[in-house]
Amino acid sequence: MTQPFPKVIAASQAASMRMADRDTPFIMNDWYVAAFGNEVHDRLLARTLLGQRVVLYRASNQEVIALDDRCPHRSMPLSAGTLDNDTLVCAYHGFRFNTDGNCIEVPSQATCPANIGVKRYRTLERGPVVWIWMGEPDQADMSQLPAQDWLEDGDWETSQGLLHLKGSYVRLHENLLDLTHLSFLHAKSFGTPDYAKAAFKSEISEGHFALLRNVVPTTLPPVWAVPTGLTGQGQAARIVRSEFRSVGMHEVSVSFYDCHLPEEDRTVFRIRTAHMPTPETLHSTHYFLVHGRDFAQHDPHTTQFMHEQLFKAFQEDVEGLALQEQALAATAPQDLYEFSVATDGPSVAMRRYLLGRQQKEASDKSHPQDAVSGQADGPPLTR
Amino acid sequence: MTQPFPKVIAASQAASMRMADRDTPFIMNDWYVAAFGNEVHDRLLARTLLGQRVVLYRASNQEVIALDDRCPHRSMPLSAGTLDNDTLVCAYHGFRFNTDGNCIEVPSQATCPANIGVKRYRTLERGPVVWIWMGEPDQADMSQLPAQDWLEDGDWETSQGLLHLKGSYVRLHENLLDLTHLSFLHAKSFGTPDYAKAAFKSEISEGHFALLRNVVPTTLPPVWAVPTGLTGQGQAARIVRSEFRSVGMHEVSVSFYDCHLPEEDRTVFRIRTAHMPTPETLHSTHYFLVHGRDFAQHDPHTTQFMHEQLFKAFQEDVEGLALQEQALAATAPQDLYEFSVATDGPSVAMRRYLLGRQQKEASDKSHPQDAVSGQADGPPLTR
Amino acid sequence: MTQPFPKVIAASQAASMRMADRDTPFIMNDWYVAAFGNEVHDRLLARTLLGQRVVLYRASNQEVIALDDRCPHRSMPLSAGTLDNDTLVCAYHGFRFNTDGNCIEVPSQATCPANIGVKRYRTLERGPVVWIWMGEPDQADMSQLPAQDWLEDGDWETSQGLLHLKGSYVRLHENLLDLTHLSFLHAKSFGTPDYAKAAFKSEISEGHFALLRNVVPTTLPPVWAVPTGLTGQGQAARIVRSEFRSVGMHEVSVSFYDCHLPEEDRTVFRIRTAHMPTPETLHSTHYFLVHGRDFAQHDPHTTQFMHEQLFKAFQEDVEGLALQEQALAATAPQDLYEFSVATDGPSVAMRRYLLGRQQKEASDKSHPQDAVSGQADGPPLTR
Repeated sequence: MTQPFPKVIAASQAASMRMADRDTPFIMNDWYVAAFGNEVHDRLLARTLLGQRVVLYRASNQEVIALDDRCPHRSMPLSAGTLDNDTLVCAYHGFRFNTDGNCIEVPSQATCPANIGVKRYRTLERGPVVWIWMGEPDQADMSQLPAQDWLEDGDWETSQGLLHLKGSYVRLHENLLDLTHLSFLHAKSFGTPDYAKAAFKSEISEGHFALLRNVVPTTLPPVWAVPTGLTGQGQAARIVRSEFRSVGMHEVSVSFYDCHLPEEDRTVFRIRTAHMPTPETLHSTHYFLVHGRDFAQHDPHTTQFMHEQLFKAFQEDVEGLALQEQALAATAPQDLYEFSVATDGPSVAMRRYLLGRQQKEASDKSHPQDAVSGQADGPPLTR
Repeated sequence: MTQPFPKVIAASQAASMRMADRDTPFIMNDWYVAAFGNEVHDRLLARTLLGQRVVLYRASNQEVIALDDRCPHRSMPLSAGTLDNDTLVCAYHGFRFNTDGNCIEVPSQATCPANIGVKRYRTLERGPVVWIWMGEPDQADMSQLPAQDWLEDGDWETSQGLLHLKGSYVRLHENLLDLTHLSFLHAKSFGTPDYAKAAFKSEISEGHFALLRNVVPTTLPPVWAVPTGLTGQGQAARIVRSEFRSVGMHEVSVSFYDCHLPEEDRTVFRIRTAHMPTPETLHSTHYFLVHGRDFAQHDPHTTQFMHEQLFKAFQEDVEGLALQEQALAATAPQDLYEFSVATDGPSVAMRRYLLGRQQKEASDKSHPQDAVSGQADGPPLTR
Repeated sequence: MTQPFPKVIAASQAASMRMADRDTPFIMNDWYVAAFGNEVHDRLLARTLLGQRVVLYRASNQEVIALDDRCPHRSMPLSAGTLDNDTLVCAYHGFRFNTDGNCIEVPSQATCPANIGVKRYRTLERGPVVWIWMGEPDQADMSQLPAQDWLEDGDWETSQGLLHLKGSYVRLHENLLDLTHLSFLHAKSFGTPDYAKAAFKSEISEGHFALLRNVVPTTLPPVWAVPTGLTGQGQAARIVRSEFRSVGMHEVSVSFYDCHLPEEDRTVFRIRTAHMPTPETLHSTHYFLVHGRDFAQHDPHTTQFMHEQLFKAFQEDVEGLALQEQALAATAPQDLYEFSVATDGPSVAMRRYLLGRQQKEASDKSHPQDAVSGQADGPPLTR
């Protein structure tokens, strides 16, 4: 074609208008990973989360403190200051803040003014990660925290990493919900040519989106062939479930077994990966990853081997999505169109859900009196 | 002066308003050089042309394929993909495109949707360069391709280069139409002090702009003195014609001879340079250059000597115009004024013509029914 | 606090609206330091001052010439050109300008057009610095030049330096008017823990703002303990006056003496620092500094020792204010609030004065007929 038919482009643009994308404002009222727990010590850690500069530290009672990283006196980053017995002392004029963010000392005067301080954010440490709630404090909802038993379960051997993505978290969720790309973007790491063509099933309901693929029989890439011993050509089954768990977490669960053995004789090897994207800005993302397996536990050599192989592949996502971001950023809105195909079903629904969540938040802010009933109605999916 | 008279400034600003400049939108309906032919092989070449990301490659029938460099599925740059038997396979989900830009395979499903694909641009390979038409496909007009016989003529010995200019192509055309600057910007390369003061003639008509200078007698700089043997003080004539050939090409033609010999005994040495600016963005330019001579053909030593000397001089243009761009970018519109003098006649007319071309395109887009009659009227030169 | 009370935030935002800050347009009608005199020679120096690109050079009569750094022909920076007998020759087409900014030669034609040229700025060289007036030429007022006898007085031994601050000059003035920060930002250089808690007095009147602190008894940091010999614990008095002298100059004066000696037996050691911030852009500043002392004159070792120690401390300001600038730039207007305390009194008044000055200039430009009477009324301090 010299160029695609205008009608087809117009239809695809209309569809994209109903989905969240790299310019959709943040969804504030949810839990995001602020840090791995082992990053947070009794010293100050600066990190931008959802566009907000935050300073994190661990108090002597082991609680993770998260405060706005800006002194409310003269805007020095608090992370440039020092910790003194759980209190934070600003690097500029020495204003002192307690773990609640209250200012408790102004060195140049005998008494400290009341009611000045910085915002403190709610945090929850679960397993290896620290979650943060940056939205309306009175809407912080424990039930929205994605369940993650295996992350806290000693039976799963885990390794973790933090990658920096120069792209939108929306597109990272999208990437994870359609693993068709394993055959191409990951052709040299953990993808195989048959992956993209394998049959798939979708699960789509309000706030729940998954894509399931059974790749049987298949040949496993070394990252899993070596530790499972399923090294034969066409020997293995690879049963994959990609699931959007929350705006801050996506989980990929995979089972491997010898597909030539009868079901009762099979050993099933299971892996899980928690992909936890936290927007840094609209166009960059902290990509927290925890990978776990239920086999070869307590085997450091296997852990290291798999970690290296897996994070090489995750790095391919980071590089690919950065290229995608560049192309998106370089394209004028009127020239941008994207066609969707069948495997995009869950991710299209997920992106419509994200847009609905954001629009509901915006609407609740403009009409706070309707917030409760609006919540009951569920998010609108059109605009 | 403490500052220039406000009336003089106002007059110069009014004049500038009628000329194209670094913020004038692109003229789409014309031919630009996309690449040298010897840059395009059976692999993917990414290049931004007129603000549009394009991927180029050479098909097995030697045709140069130029497609929008963005997968219409999920916006991965196609240039990150691979070539497979003349088809382009996207790096992300493996969508496959033929040389027409049509999508012919979606790996995750058995059938490929109809009517999806990417825009393909018309290309023409002539001599050493590949031209591209990025405007309205049905207005692609072979007659607008600047004639360039010498570029395809074996009698001219050529050498070529591609420079990257951090400035507007408008200002590069302007630079070329007034070679007064040879005495200053190129004082240490191919300019001589007498050049700026030599008599000149202008040719100005619709779409045709030239400035001619006879520098007689003069002393040639080494780049030409050495290969012509015209090494004496004041021995040479230097007869120069600078001509705007199209929005994508400017040609400088020069003749040298011994001005002390009678006309019938003279050997005339001729050089030509095709300066082919293609906007990358409004404020940066791919500067394609081909230099040719009709003497000392098949002499690689002379070719190399002249190439080094000439491209050192062209680099002076690139550096000077980048400084000009910085000054223009740093000046608020209300503070910007430029005075023109007599040698600016052709370039002022050329910049008015470029603005007229752009305004006509914009008008044709807003009123497509008037496009044909509008064309007959010629471009308006005021706004 | 989970977050500060909205009412408290709203009040602080209302107060900030009445103060100049990093986005307040420049105050043009005043003297700023353009350069140290020893930076300006018979060659071209490019410098951006108040957002304007300026070229500086010293004429053969020793006068400092300051012109707009943009050729009025085709916008080449004049600083890329050459000096020839006090005239400036443009690097592009050789237009020649005299020290008044008048164009006196156009090489491509026999006669030079009248009335073209570039703006020349008034300069005054006083002691080590060159002042420039970039506002309305007819309002250039010698009486606004901050008095600075000690800078020109041979009895004071001086050393100087130029730092580049990635932040607003407004915040640098603010930083200087409240030296509470010596105990924190400069804890490792010339601050001591007792500094912030020492009693202070404020002086606030129209255009005059100062903060005075007597730190008695105190222990001097090495930078002053060593050259004065006041090395004992709690031996010294440190009497400090920080004073806003003009939009282009702040002066810190300090006296040291042995506080255990009766007044008649004391040797008083005095230092002064002229802090001269000149905006480069709204968000970056040329920070000119001259430090002087009235003791140990003609002792190069002491001069070098003190210079190194002092400029290490001034560099701490530059780094701290750059962090502040980053935090300010990253904070959306509706999220920005700053609380002031007692020691901020002079700086708050100073920032209100700066805003008033800028607003008066803007108002005079819109209503030139009222300019004189408006001046008599003094600047409005609200908006």
